[in-house]
Amino acid sequence: MLQNIRVVLVNTSHPGNIGGAARAMKNMGLSRLVLVDPQHFPSPEADARASGADDVLAGAQVVATLEEALVGCNLVLGTSARERRIPWPLVDPRECASKVIEHAAQGEEIALVFGREHAGLTNEELQRCHFHVHIPSNPDFSSLNLGAAVQVLAYEVRMAWLALEGQASPTETVDSGELATMDEMELFYEHLEKTLVDIGFLDPQKPKHLMPRLRRLYGRSSVDRSELNILRGILTETQKAARGEPHKRKDQ
Amino acid sequence: MLQNIRVVLVNTSHPGNIGGAARAMKNMGLSRLVLVDPQHFPSPEADARASGADDVLAGAQVVATLEEALVGCNLVLGTSARERRIPWPLVDPRECASKVIEHAAQGEEIALVFGREHAGLTNEELQRCHFHVHIPSNPDFSSLNLGAAVQVLAYEVRMAWLALEGQASPTETVDSGELATMDEMELFYEHLEKTLVDIGFLDPQKPKHLMPRLRRLYGRSSVDRSELNILRGILTETQKAARGEPHKRKDQ
Repeated sequence: MLQNIRVVLVNTSHPGNIGGAARAMKNMGLSRLVLVDPQHFPSPEADARASGADDVLAGAQVVATLEEALVGCNLVLGTSARERRIPWPLVDPRECASKVIEHAAQGEEIALVFGREHAGLTNEELQRCHFHVHIPSNPDFSSLNLGAAVQVLAYEVRMAWLALEGQASPTETVDSGELATMDEMELFYEHLEKTLVDIGFLDPQKPKHLMPRLRRLYGRSSVDRSELNILRGILTETQKAARGEPHKRKDQ
Repeated sequence: MLQNIRVVLVNTSHPGNIGGAARAMKNMGLSRLVLVDPQHFPSPEADARASGADDVLAGAQVVATLEEALVGCNLVLGTSARERRIPWPLVDPRECASKVIEHAAQGEEIALVFGREHAGLTNEELQRCHFHVHIPSNPDFSSLNLGAAVQVLAYEVRMAWLALEGQASPTETVDSGELATMDEMELFYEHLEKTLVDIGFLDPQKPKHLMPRLRRLYGRSSVDRSELNILRGILTETQKAARGEPHKRKDQ
């Protein structure tokens, strides 16, 4: 589906930015680059900044006009500063990505269009776009580097694609051990409470809120089974110390 | 609120990337840059790529160690490749930004930490972080340019900030105590390690992965200051027990 998405750079001045855009695209799984009248291409600076995304540069299509770059496209979104004389449907990068993936999933062809480093897209070019995309930025310093702008949109496209593919978000795939069960945690809290009495930290006559606070602390952490074994081991050794038994390490 | 957020770049090789990061930060309204042992700084390449974010570079703090960079921080998030030997709480950039803004809104200090261009952060550095952030990427070409990685996280932080600012009635934050700072947590880990040696649970000759695992456990829990006082109190009493001193409760 990502192969239905082309990134179009219009009249880029600095070849380093073409390389940076290629790297950002490949990082996010995009591969189709179209260059409209680039000032210098190919170029060693583009190769250097691509930093391994050589295949994206090698496959780049160079054309003379935006019109040629958009042949066959069903949906075109162009980056824009917020204020424009002609009001136009304006989306943020997240809304942009959601439209891109929705249409790409239907087999349609999509273009993301980026303008010149200093001047952006002309009004005529912007009028060829179905939507304008504005990347939220500091009003006093709003012009992103071209490669950075490609990075933000490509990142949002990947996030939307992952969401559609149903790929778990990273947090769900953390390779952590199996969580301790509630009853194992209860045994731990009993052990902890006894140990705190043994070392004289907890007065059973005046427990105050000590155990509830410790429950909240460990509860928040979602302790896994191997961590619980460590904590139980520490308590056992602490109890021995409190009884005045000499400690014995496995290797002694 | 955004001024509570510092961007920390560790041991950066290419000064151009420092400039790119500064520009991305300023575009998104972030201003506090901390450089840990940069290989070349200041540098004309950094100035050129900053492209007007000179104030961010001029205000950058240069320090020798990550520990110094994190003094006073309540919440630390470090970028990471997905696969790590020690599993750690992992978030995507959007979840990262949501945590950042939630804590910054409470006046807490936050650090976003980025590693070396080729080697990232070391395991030891990663263990100083509460959360690891993974930017979703093409598994076959996963390494983002440093400035591009800063751009993605700074963009998500701005999106989360705008969402919060745009709320007519800001949601009430959970009434939790102020989080312990990183330096307070470091003192706790030192105390914990000594105590575990005292009771014979930790063999300094064969520490295995005990301390990293305990750091992960407590780090996940985002310990607040009054909880930290309880934990320190328990350690102090445990050490007394290990020395064979009779314990004395306040009421005895």
